[in-house]
Amino acid sequence: MEFKISRELIHELEDLIKSRNDRQLEVLLNDMHHADIAEILDKLDFNEATYVFKVLDSEKTAEILLELEDDLRENILGRLSAKEIAEELDELETNDAADIIGELSQDLKAEVISELLDVEHAKDIVDLLRYDEDTAGGIMHKELVKVNENWNVLTCVKEMRMQAENISRVHSIYVVDDEDRLKGRLSLKDLLTTSSRTAISDVYIRKLNSVKVNTEDVEVARIMQKYDLEAIPVVDELGRLVGRITIDDILDVIKEEADKDYQLAAGISQDIEADDSILEHTKARLPWLVLALLGGFVTVKVLGLFEPAMEEHGKLFFFTPLIAAMAGNVGVQSSAIIVQGLANNSLSGSLFSRLVKEVMLSLLNGLILAIILFLGSHFLLDVEFIIGFIVTIALVSVIIIASLIGTFIPLLLEKFGIDPALATGPFITTSNDICGILIYFSIAKMILGF
Amino acid sequence: MEFKISRELIHELEDLIKSRNDRQLEVLLNDMHHADIAEILDKLDFNEATYVFKVLDSEKTAEILLELEDDLRENILGRLSAKEIAEELDELETNDAADIIGELSQDLKAEVISELLDVEHAKDIVDLLRYDEDTAGGIMHKELVKVNENWNVLTCVKEMRMQAENISRVHSIYVVDDEDRLKGRLSLKDLLTTSSRTAISDVYIRKLNSVKVNTEDVEVARIMQKYDLEAIPVVDELGRLVGRITIDDILDVIKEEADKDYQLAAGISQDIEADDSILEHTKARLPWLVLALLGGFVTVKVLGLFEPAMEEHGKLFFFTPLIAAMAGNVGVQSSAIIVQGLANNSLSGSLFSRLVKEVMLSLLNGLILAIILFLGSHFLLDVEFIIGFIVTIALVSVIIIASLIGTFIPLLLEKFGIDPALATGPFITTSNDICGILIYFSIAKMILGF
Repeated sequence: MEFKISRELIHELEDLIKSRNDRQLEVLLNDMHHADIAEILDKLDFNEATYVFKVLDSEKTAEILLELEDDLRENILGRLSAKEIAEELDELETNDAADIIGELSQDLKAEVISELLDVEHAKDIVDLLRYDEDTAGGIMHKELVKVNENWNVLTCVKEMRMQAENISRVHSIYVVDDEDRLKGRLSLKDLLTTSSRTAISDVYIRKLNSVKVNTEDVEVARIMQKYDLEAIPVVDELGRLVGRITIDDILDVIKEEADKDYQLAAGISQDIEADDSILEHTKARLPWLVLALLGGFVTVKVLGLFEPAMEEHGKLFFFTPLIAAMAGNVGVQSSAIIVQGLANNSLSGSLFSRLVKEVMLSLLNGLILAIILFLGSHFLLDVEFIIGFIVTIALVSVIIIASLIGTFIPLLLEKFGIDPALATGPFITTSNDICGILIYFSIAKMILGF
Repeated sequence: MEFKISRELIHELEDLIKSRNDRQLEVLLNDMHHADIAEILDKLDFNEATYVFKVLDSEKTAEILLELEDDLRENILGRLSAKEIAEELDELETNDAADIIGELSQDLKAEVISELLDVEHAKDIVDLLRYDEDTAGGIMHKELVKVNENWNVLTCVKEMRMQAENISRVHSIYVVDDEDRLKGRLSLKDLLTTSSRTAISDVYIRKLNSVKVNTEDVEVARIMQKYDLEAIPVVDELGRLVGRITIDDILDVIKEEADKDYQLAAGISQDIEADDSILEHTKARLPWLVLALLGGFVTVKVLGLFEPAMEEHGKLFFFTPLIAAMAGNVGVQSSAIIVQGLANNSLSGSLFSRLVKEVMLSLLNGLILAIILFLGSHFLLDVEFIIGFIVTIALVSVIIIASLIGTFIPLLLEKFGIDPALATGPFITTSNDICGILIYFSIAKMILGF
């Protein structure tokens, strides 16, 4: 039961836009989900999209705004006045509104805030703007239902109905004391099944998880996943209830984190998408390529050291890409396992036992690969026995060293508070290329003595 | 406010286990969250963990079982009788119970099912076992609250209280007709604010998303994220309501999918964790290394074709790892962008425009890198002008070709219904190594004519 955008629909819309048939546009789009409309607008050009956007009702457009691709949203916001933007924000939840304000220029920000109609809402939004976006404060929203521990169930239900009007999902009702300090929670189900004269203090659950405003967002995600929570309250330094984080906020954090690790492993250093501009792609990709190029300079230098081998044992040089590739692949495998283990908090045991395990693993893999290589060098590649022997010995050594480097570097980065995912990708492959080639030719030199 | 396992706690537990002090063990663990206890058990050895597990109450152990690492769970289940396992499953939600039964041997499965006390529960679990684990049916649970459209609010609240007893999170109340066909939904909030004589058919919301039992799990995840749903009902071919999927089920799907893509990009072919056995690691890693090794054989052959260059232009061979590394890195960047774009459904435009964009991007990156390389080869690497010139030309060509291969292959795989993430990692780097070296030496041969 999902909506799919057809080419015909896009054509129909384009025709309606061309003929300025606003009435028909509204009829066509009115029944659609805002996420679907956003998907449609992303397929139109900026002018068409803005036109449609202005035709629609602000109740709908506010939600659409959230779902648009960044560049289209920026473009549309650029064509709205401060007052028009404020009208959109009045319709949104506090954290969504704060996110959009956060994208505006400093001057426009103040102007938009002053145009917000609902003063309470404006206060909440301004409050949220204070927090760092990677913290619980940065992802929480102010919409929540709270009751005083001194009330009874009847007052509580009345209050709750009032408060819940603007909240799409209630989840839990939080219980606070007179100073607004978080004391516990009530479930909707409990409310439905308790007599209306009961005092709240007699029924609420005193044990509940909460996080501080400055807790890192990935930590919040970890806690909510571990304890299987659908919402978690956020408290300030004094233990006062200041906001709430729901599981859909956390979904974004988890996806972003996974995307970031994936991109880092592929040598892409900021969050970019396929449809971003060439300049943004260059900014994200070029630094890693420069790193790899400089690493390449080092491999040229290293190979230069062994130039004397060329005359008699030139075939040795045919194997450098093979050795480098194996070192790179093994290193990336090892570091990816560590990076994921760190991210999922699933690493146990000491560094030493981990390194021992990697050595065992590399020995096993290395020996199997060595047999293939040794046979291959003899039957397929047709090189002298001694060359095949050297390459095989080098392969096993390189695999062991590469896996140790791959294991050690992310753990080291983590120790120094640097994102271990930086270690994967070009960084590991480049350093392993260099080490691998150095080891290979050193072994060759020892055996052949050139 | 999160629990951290201390070394002291583990020691204390180990002492209590040694002295068989069950009473004290229970006191110590009774107040802890099951997720924390699972984390503790994972740190103990199998015998200790099983001992503690048997001391605890089945209400608690059932939930713990779900959170344990696979190997410990397997070990503990192996030491329980069919009846004991059934006791655990009686405490669990249907989909969790079905997941655990799915891990048992065929014989044990039947035996455990026959020992389940709650017949309704057993029927639901058996029903769930029918579905493929990667489909909506495979991740849904049977716990949900449903009411008949012909009831009034009062009957509905009564029924709901009864049904909701075993359900931790109500979310929505589904409305069905006499044939159990899904008609719409009611929110808890609406129930709280509607008079008790109102007919359900007058208040329920008729529009709602649902998925079919055989919808793929990643598709369900996409729909729930797009429409920001916390729960989605699952219907069979006849439109009858058969289950429900909540956002926490989807969280697992999203994480698994992200982990899988990440591991594939790193050349690891099944879902493994750092703490899995060496044999499992070898099974997951070795195939990719063999692929890379065979690719390496091809590079040796390719270089062999250009052996005549060695006498006069031996320095050319110093640059093969550099060229191969650049080709690999560029290819992985391009393919990672495509794989993520496909996963997030955010690719727009034609294949042609995408390839044109990649060429523009590679030209820009390539030119900047070419300048660095050309200057570097002259001032740092001290090679003749002509070699520097050849390497520079080759670099730009290789970057363009590698990015086209990186873009094209995942799109091609997707077209044939193969997971495009397979394209990233060793596959792309290996094929780009080969192409890169071939292009480089072909250009050298054209210019130098050896």
